[in-house]
Amino acid sequence: MSTSGVTVLGGGVIGLSVAWFAARDGFAVEVVDPGSPHGGSWVAGGMLAPITEAWPGDEDVLALGVESLARWPAFAADLGVALSLVGTLAVATDVADGEVLDQLRAHLESQGRSATRLTRRELRAAEPGLGPSVRSGLSVPGDLSVDNRDLLRALRAACARHGVRFATESTQDHEITVIAAGAWSRDLHPLLREVIRPVKGEILRLSARPGALPPPRHTVRAQVSSRPVYLVPRAGGLVLGATQYEAGFDPDVTVGGVRDLLRDAEVVWPAIAEYALTECAAGFRAGSPDNLPVVDWLEPGVLAATGHHRNGLLLAPVTARRVLDLLREGGTR
Amino acid sequence: MSTSGVTVLGGGVIGLSVAWFAARDGFAVEVVDPGSPHGGSWVAGGMLAPITEAWPGDEDVLALGVESLARWPAFAADLGVALSLVGTLAVATDVADGEVLDQLRAHLESQGRSATRLTRRELRAAEPGLGPSVRSGLSVPGDLSVDNRDLLRALRAACARHGVRFATESTQDHEITVIAAGAWSRDLHPLLREVIRPVKGEILRLSARPGALPPPRHTVRAQVSSRPVYLVPRAGGLVLGATQYEAGFDPDVTVGGVRDLLRDAEVVWPAIAEYALTECAAGFRAGSPDNLPVVDWLEPGVLAATGHHRNGLLLAPVTARRVLDLLREGGTR
Repeated sequence: MSTSGVTVLGGGVIGLSVAWFAARDGFAVEVVDPGSPHGGSWVAGGMLAPITEAWPGDEDVLALGVESLARWPAFAADLGVALSLVGTLAVATDVADGEVLDQLRAHLESQGRSATRLTRRELRAAEPGLGPSVRSGLSVPGDLSVDNRDLLRALRAACARHGVRFATESTQDHEITVIAAGAWSRDLHPLLREVIRPVKGEILRLSARPGALPPPRHTVRAQVSSRPVYLVPRAGGLVLGATQYEAGFDPDVTVGGVRDLLRDAEVVWPAIAEYALTECAAGFRAGSPDNLPVVDWLEPGVLAATGHHRNGLLLAPVTARRVLDLLREGGTR
Repeated sequence: MSTSGVTVLGGGVIGLSVAWFAARDGFAVEVVDPGSPHGGSWVAGGMLAPITEAWPGDEDVLALGVESLARWPAFAADLGVALSLVGTLAVATDVADGEVLDQLRAHLESQGRSATRLTRRELRAAEPGLGPSVRSGLSVPGDLSVDNRDLLRALRAACARHGVRFATESTQDHEITVIAAGAWSRDLHPLLREVIRPVKGEILRLSARPGALPPPRHTVRAQVSSRPVYLVPRAGGLVLGATQYEAGFDPDVTVGGVRDLLRDAEVVWPAIAEYALTECAAGFRAGSPDNLPVVDWLEPGVLAATGHHRNGLLLAPVTARRVLDLLREGGTR
């Protein structure tokens, strides 16, 4: 058993997963996080959806996502967090958006995966609250979802059980540093500055009020007037997401973003008009040039685990596993 | 000088104004307020607008409002709070809404007040950022506006300077109680239960971001698709209001309310799409059957000062003056 020390910069889902795995393996671990309300793991929908997110050209992203998804049931069970297994409906409201669904289905089939086209009637049998403008859909089995904030709490608790120390500034002089600070990683090493960029996203949290139609059972992803929107059911409510801007570290929730999310989601699920709007938040994903994360040594003693873009939660198990392998190698160099 | 003690139930603009006037007059005063984020004074636009709000049948409301408005410059000066004197533009986007403006002008003229119809070109000269759908308008001189939260802070400071005590529960056994708890007053005396009701309103606070067109200089009131909306400029941003529901003490900000306010305000001032949405809030106005406040003795030793509906800020000076007169009489009975 190694007894080296590891400092993890970043207390989001990647940093905490890395810290948990490393501490469980015998490393002395400190997680350093100054705290931000704009971390990508906190401001997230919680979809674990490599399959519905699949897109031609991103086959490596799909393969990595599918590999990590397979690890999720055990990962969640170890943490004691619940996974939603109901799956995803991808829906469209006009012909052009319906063609996007056809492309997704064709692509999934080319990758050896199935997705079922649903008629208008089948869609409504699955989710009676869908709006009248929703006219085509695809049932995509396999995707999961998790309450991202429950997950973060469970990860912190698991870390604490294994002796991980938490600090807002580094207090230990450890041999190894893991940079897992999401979009902020770009400021922590010159090699990351060139490849990691913040990709802003806005999400809304809604709560179903008494008398209102409850949220859908499935995660619903939609194209509305070419804009993507997702509705993730969450304990009596919904998370709506997500806008996407390349505008640096601008933390504002914009009127235009909220307007689009509400408008598009209401087309998909009209009952939300009667829901309570409980939170509007903006966060930063860690974008990378090829949409794949950077998980590797940057120099002796300095590891990166960042660049997860829209897939930080999904890729946490596979990333933490890979970092642990690198740490074990690093310990013997 | 009287030295009687007065307990004021309610720390909103009415309760604080009453407390300030009474303490300044020599009464020993305690303000009791358990604290709520849904008070009508905190969740308010800050318009002091009896004239633009005038409506046939509500002549008494207009007269009282105009009387109080005349007291506002001195009231604000004593408190050291700034008043905006720029005035109000009432605008409309379609023919039916334009007819409402014609009715308002006719009514104001019948009351001996003037309002000027503006052409499309004149409107844009006054406020170049108005949306292309805004096609008629009325310039209404005389209305003021105030930052409602600055006002509350200034009132608390003025009260403190005059020895007013603040508590979340009553600590003094005073001879006189003033019920000034807004919509919650209905639960504080059986006579109020029949006449005071909560009228829920939602408002949004926006902040103009760098590069976006600044907010209008005027308060802009509009009818959009028959829904009223107002935009009150406020230190680099705007307050948008206000929805109106008769639904008891339901404190939720609803998706439908936010959607309507954003949609309607964006028609009036398209630049808000680039603004930051900094707050969504719901509050309760104290509705009364005739839209006039209840300012009178309910029984020996118990005074009411409530039922101000949409006009709590506007009517604070005249209400506090009237309560002080009643307290002085009460002290000699």
